[in-house]
Amino acid sequence: MRCQHCGEVAVISMPQHRLKLCEKHFPLWVERRVARTIESFQMFSSDDRLLVAVSGGKDSLALWEILLRLGYQADGLYIHLGIEHEGYSHVSQSYAEAFAATHPDATLHLVDVRARYGRSIPELAREGGRRACSRCGMIKRYIMNRTAREGDYDAIVTGHNLDDEAAQLLQNNLYWLRGYLQRQAPVLPQTCQGLVRKAKPLCLVAERESAAYTFVRGIEYIQQECPHSAGATSIFHKKILNDMERRSPGTKLQYYQGFVRARQDGFIIGDEDTPPLEECERCGQPTTANALCAFCRMLETEET
Amino acid sequence: MRCQHCGEVAVISMPQHRLKLCEKHFPLWVERRVARTIESFQMFSSDDRLLVAVSGGKDSLALWEILLRLGYQADGLYIHLGIEHEGYSHVSQSYAEAFAATHPDATLHLVDVRARYGRSIPELAREGGRRACSRCGMIKRYIMNRTAREGDYDAIVTGHNLDDEAAQLLQNNLYWLRGYLQRQAPVLPQTCQGLVRKAKPLCLVAERESAAYTFVRGIEYIQQECPHSAGATSIFHKKILNDMERRSPGTKLQYYQGFVRARQDGFIIGDEDTPPLEECERCGQPTTANALCAFCRMLETEET
Repeated sequence: MRCQHCGEVAVISMPQHRLKLCEKHFPLWVERRVARTIESFQMFSSDDRLLVAVSGGKDSLALWEILLRLGYQADGLYIHLGIEHEGYSHVSQSYAEAFAATHPDATLHLVDVRARYGRSIPELAREGGRRACSRCGMIKRYIMNRTAREGDYDAIVTGHNLDDEAAQLLQNNLYWLRGYLQRQAPVLPQTCQGLVRKAKPLCLVAERESAAYTFVRGIEYIQQECPHSAGATSIFHKKILNDMERRSPGTKLQYYQGFVRARQDGFIIGDEDTPPLEECERCGQPTTANALCAFCRMLETEET
Repeated sequence: MRCQHCGEVAVISMPQHRLKLCEKHFPLWVERRVARTIESFQMFSSDDRLLVAVSGGKDSLALWEILLRLGYQADGLYIHLGIEHEGYSHVSQSYAEAFAATHPDATLHLVDVRARYGRSIPELAREGGRRACSRCGMIKRYIMNRTAREGDYDAIVTGHNLDDEAAQLLQNNLYWLRGYLQRQAPVLPQTCQGLVRKAKPLCLVAERESAAYTFVRGIEYIQQECPHSAGATSIFHKKILNDMERRSPGTKLQYYQGFVRARQDGFIIGDEDTPPLEECERCGQPTTANALCAFCRMLETEET
């Protein structure tokens, strides 16, 4: 197997792109692909200050590396969730810190959920009688937006890859969750109501490509999956999409890109209006609720 | 396992409906479900003369039986495709004829493709260098519409079941085939341009339910799949949907019904206009082409 650019030994074959590349040309190809994704969706400009949501996993660290190599001003945000099973949060934080230590131009912000808000994610989920994942998503979105506003960042970037996006799309699509379909996009622009712009520059990079990228760039990351993710529907849908990809390479990319284009062309037009956002009375963050945002409601309910 | 209507031994459990029924109540449930589907989508009225496309398989014979039991005027149309592998066409015709023989109020129309047009489906496909399935679909649609017009039928009804429709939807959806998504519906109304109304009264009946229906009603049908269907994408997509159904009963129904509702609500709005239809210069059937319809073009090309 030979690199189609230089004829050296290829490290990866990507049948969906009919492309085989060596360890020198593959990471350059990924970086160029991300640069083009950022441009084509007008995600952000070279002047923007970016806040990368870093979990310590392969995708977010690969994304941070790529953005810095492309010359963006990109700082990181690690949210310590307090997941103690097999030291998950502790270990993942150490990978985020190790990465930051080798990139002195970038700052890593740390937010410890228990230290700041009194309880860890598993504790908050237990108290609320909810699955940890739905609580965790809400809390992370809250902390990301608040940290970005307080630090005057222009955009939050997350490491969602093609597999994540296609699985999310399949979930929204199977049940025709119209509101979610309308809001699923490579970039969500800043609103005038306090929601910082959000972008997913890896949305056209497959999980396998992201993993290979960290390998050839020598990035160390936590390989363990979040212990709460076992049995998650998203994992099942990724398996389904991989079955289809094996039969017909390029399915994931066509499915996701076709959706993005259809959405842009107005093919998917919803009947649900986005509700107006207000400021939360307690924290000042944007919310669709009347007085308190979901985050402050959660803290208040569980304090009483 | 007990029938939830009468407590007798149940013959089927339908987890997606949380329902178990006996051999008496299950077929009545299917028939009522079909009656409601016909009404809710305003497929046709009790005065309409229906032409059932009968393949000799379980779905089309189940549909014919159900329509007759519901009191509709329903004749059958069997198209002899000339598929000789293991006597496929011959055997399937014999099942259609056997069914018709026990239902003296209904007429079975027979069209033999080779006798009428000079060549069988496999021959036409071979000559055209195409896969048999795409040719077969076009030819069957042509003959169905022509037979319905010549016999003054108000609607063509086909035995597409929920699994067929969900698999077709997944195919159209994965590749965002917008024109097909716009045209996939439980009923396609008659146009003023010579296309007879088409309806799929079994679209909310799962394949497994249709098979069970023929069993309890004692309908004999060809169990062999069409020899040309081996390896078809639709079969793969049915398997994928069954994997999802097993994990989450009701997925197929929610996926298809959610799509139908979304389409009705204008959630899926296309940018592609339906081209106007003209009359084919040779046969008078409707066509989007200029002079000859696809069917007559096929015959002409292959005559030369």
